[in-house]
Amino acid sequence: MAVTAERAATTTRRAEVGRAAARLFSQRGYHGTSMQHLGDALGLQRGSLYAHIGSKEELLFDVVAEGADRFLTAAHKADGLEATARARLTALLVGHIETAATHHEAATVFLSEWRYLSEDLRAPIQNKRDEYEAIVRRIIADGIAGGEFRPDADVFFAATLVLSAGNWTYTWYRPGGRLTPAEIGTRFAQLVINGLTEED
Amino acid sequence: MAVTAERAATTTRRAEVGRAAARLFSQRGYHGTSMQHLGDALGLQRGSLYAHIGSKEELLFDVVAEGADRFLTAAHKADGLEATARARLTALLVGHIETAATHHEAATVFLSEWRYLSEDLRAPIQNKRDEYEAIVRRIIADGIAGGEFRPDADVFFAATLVLSAGNWTYTWYRPGGRLTPAEIGTRFAQLVINGLTEED
Repeated sequence: MAVTAERAATTTRRAEVGRAAARLFSQRGYHGTSMQHLGDALGLQRGSLYAHIGSKEELLFDVVAEGADRFLTAAHKADGLEATARARLTALLVGHIETAATHHEAATVFLSEWRYLSEDLRAPIQNKRDEYEAIVRRIIADGIAGGEFRPDADVFFAATLVLSAGNWTYTWYRPGGRLTPAEIGTRFAQLVINGLTEED
Repeated sequence: MAVTAERAATTTRRAEVGRAAARLFSQRGYHGTSMQHLGDALGLQRGSLYAHIGSKEELLFDVVAEGADRFLTAAHKADGLEATARARLTALLVGHIETAATHHEAATVFLSEWRYLSEDLRAPIQNKRDEYEAIVRRIIADGIAGGEFRPDADVFFAATLVLSAGNWTYTWYRPGGRLTPAEIGTRFAQLVINGLTEED
């Protein structure tokens, strides 16, 4: 019982630390957030900061990895649909923008602060980014192979356009705007799909 | 003569300070750059830092405004061409990506650090961003009015897609890659234009 309660308290504390780090890093940037800021946000005294928080870079890694995993989970779900390439591409963009909207702080840190990770901590995140991009390219390549998209479509540029539309959204999307994340994703997808299906 | 030489020295010093600020803010972020970093980069002693540098936020404003002005100048040049909407949209994206590539540090600070400006300094930058977006939307609206683009095209989403493709480029473009900035801009523009001209 005691061990279980202690474990639960540790898990709760880790989650609190993660949320505070996501909020501060997304608002002030990684380099603009000090251990003191984190301690103040968590009500910790200077002496016990490192015992509870670990290193600042580990925290950055945790938040970036959380963001990366949320985007990846949504992409795998879209890619796994038994549906046309168009439908999967639309579902992927919708899932991407819903993730950026729902997990705005982790998504912001993933997209704008991950570059501050040192090389050994960047590598596993780079792998997740590569995995994500590979999913987008595969859906587009499937659409070309299956005759949905024009045979001369440029897979790299189409995938980069999809990623740019999705990734840039965190800079301008605000909750309560005139369109839902799903509508934003669907409209972007429609434009990109039109671009891929036009016949000369 | 003495006055002219002094003025020239002041101008040179301002340009040096601006370049150092652009480099440091783009590499470490605004909040991650201290006055001491700036002083070290410029070979200034602690005591004379503020006399030479002014406030850190003024420097951020100068770099962000430089980035904004470079993007705007390129956009006005593209918009002013005596050419079709397609050609102007392509020229705009090419100019955008060439600007991001050529002035990578100022462009990075403009795109990723401007959010740290306080409200009164953000306002003139927001005006420049609005002016830029208005140019993109006008070109697309011209294309619809002139029959080049489909009548039901969504001007907001098409413009946002163009801006997303252009703005996200600074995160992945590296000099010496397989494509020039002009080729990248042209390929993005082609995809967007295909999306705008497809007939059902």
